[in-house]
Amino acid sequence: MIVAATFAETRRLGSGIVGLVPTMGFLHEGHLSLIARSSASNDTTIVSLFVNPTQFDDPADLERYPRNFERDRDLAFSAGADVLFAPDESEMYPREPLASVVVRQLTDHMEGSLRPGHFEGVATVVAKLFAGIQPDVAYFGRKDAQQVSVVTTMARDLSFPVQIEPGATIREYDGLALSSRNVFLSDADREQALEISSGLFAASDLIDDGETDAARIEAACLDRIGDLDLEYVQLADQATAQPLDRLDRPAFLAVAGSVGATRLIDNVAIDRMNGQWVVDRGERLAERSMLYGENDAAGS
Amino acid sequence: MIVAATFAETRRLGSGIVGLVPTMGFLHEGHLSLIARSSASNDTTIVSLFVNPTQFDDPADLERYPRNFERDRDLAFSAGADVLFAPDESEMYPREPLASVVVRQLTDHMEGSLRPGHFEGVATVVAKLFAGIQPDVAYFGRKDAQQVSVVTTMARDLSFPVQIEPGATIREYDGLALSSRNVFLSDADREQALEISSGLFAASDLIDDGETDAARIEAACLDRIGDLDLEYVQLADQATAQPLDRLDRPAFLAVAGSVGATRLIDNVAIDRMNGQWVVDRGERLAERSMLYGENDAAGS
Repeated sequence: MIVAATFAETRRLGSGIVGLVPTMGFLHEGHLSLIARSSASNDTTIVSLFVNPTQFDDPADLERYPRNFERDRDLAFSAGADVLFAPDESEMYPREPLASVVVRQLTDHMEGSLRPGHFEGVATVVAKLFAGIQPDVAYFGRKDAQQVSVVTTMARDLSFPVQIEPGATIREYDGLALSSRNVFLSDADREQALEISSGLFAASDLIDDGETDAARIEAACLDRIGDLDLEYVQLADQATAQPLDRLDRPAFLAVAGSVGATRLIDNVAIDRMNGQWVVDRGERLAERSMLYGENDAAGS
Repeated sequence: MIVAATFAETRRLGSGIVGLVPTMGFLHEGHLSLIARSSASNDTTIVSLFVNPTQFDDPADLERYPRNFERDRDLAFSAGADVLFAPDESEMYPREPLASVVVRQLTDHMEGSLRPGHFEGVATVVAKLFAGIQPDVAYFGRKDAQQVSVVTTMARDLSFPVQIEPGATIREYDGLALSSRNVFLSDADREQALEISSGLFAASDLIDDGETDAARIEAACLDRIGDLDLEYVQLADQATAQPLDRLDRPAFLAVAGSVGATRLIDNVAIDRMNGQWVVDRGERLAERSMLYGENDAAGS
């Protein structure tokens, strides 16, 4: 249980097979499930904690992003982390960066088109973590489905010897996908926010019944969206994040929208197993998330 | 002395402190001086040999680029290489790549503006070598001054723990900078090509005499250029590759031009030592280069 502030120290601390769980902190059960998986499978589990400014397209979102170092440190170690890499900005960006990693095609739609520069920031900071820490395996939540596609492609195309392990989306007891940003939701906001997962589950039921037409699958989801400020409902190819007209390859059905000032995304993954389409709706907590355990966190 | 075709095997073979010398083959004394330096300083020296298609802006140039595997293998090992990493294209680019590394600002001028996509290809393939081989030190010839700036910035901004070691430009007995492409020059071409180094040396003499005005330094070089199809003469910042009006920081004076169908570049580096500007004119061979030792090479 060591906190390291530099790449050099973190790299030295990684012995044997090294698993990395990149996070922006304010950990919840989604992060902890990734940390526990890494801890069970690897010799060293490194959790990185850095709120990366280059992936925020909205300065207000960066400003209010929840932060609580002591809470994250304790949670990471209790979940099985061996090393917490918590760099400050001068370690990550010692000078104005001129080099960055761009991922074409996968970033043309959805989050890529709606959040200019977001995926360049993500691909670049993850490349830096891979370059500077040299992990063997890295864990990413499926809640950010397009991000999983982008990171997988980045690692392959830049020849990083890192295996990407996606982890199931963890949901709150009522279906809402866990996100550090959920702490901003009022009770009324939550009711609206549930339209997203409710829509995804309705579409999932249709897929279970054999539907493969994208327009009908998306319509089933849209039917449940009422007051939410919707940005998109999109069936997309898991590997390329390109829109699909028909469910004919591993895919995800993704939704984005805003409740008040809080933007939320969610999706269900659809994989082929034993000749059938199987929807991964994620896993649901039995109890209230640890996100709300203490109220000292947001804005601190 | 092992030839490896995959990143995984090459990475396993690198024990202790690992030095990497990236090349596109058809080795000459410039490459061999880098290999010898690495061999003297590191536990393992890896030479990579790959004619990288993504950094060629001209398909004809890629097509006729000289290749001779057996010659390169023997030269690399005799100079001190422990491992020759010679991947085929399916190892380097198993699929159409979608992710790449872009380096802004440093690529705005000179080779960056004249060869579209060239430095994106260079930065990306070097990032792949750093990611897949994990060297501690990497060696690049100063003959490609802007490339040294681009690679140094890429390594820093992507947090690769790789020290970049530039090596002095090695010149033929008459001053012509060594380049694998020199094998294409006829005797008449060589006379024209010498205008480049001759111009650089005239400008260097002026700098030795205390001149710091870029226009006058560049003019001294231009005075020696006659029949050559000149593209640019430019004094530029070593760190940023930006044009300079005045020699007031570490710089290089760069020239590019064509002789017949062969494009050539050259430069002298200018460093500050003991309060004076000192020009690095490179090192000159006493004899005819090994490039011309056998005529079985070009086009084979």
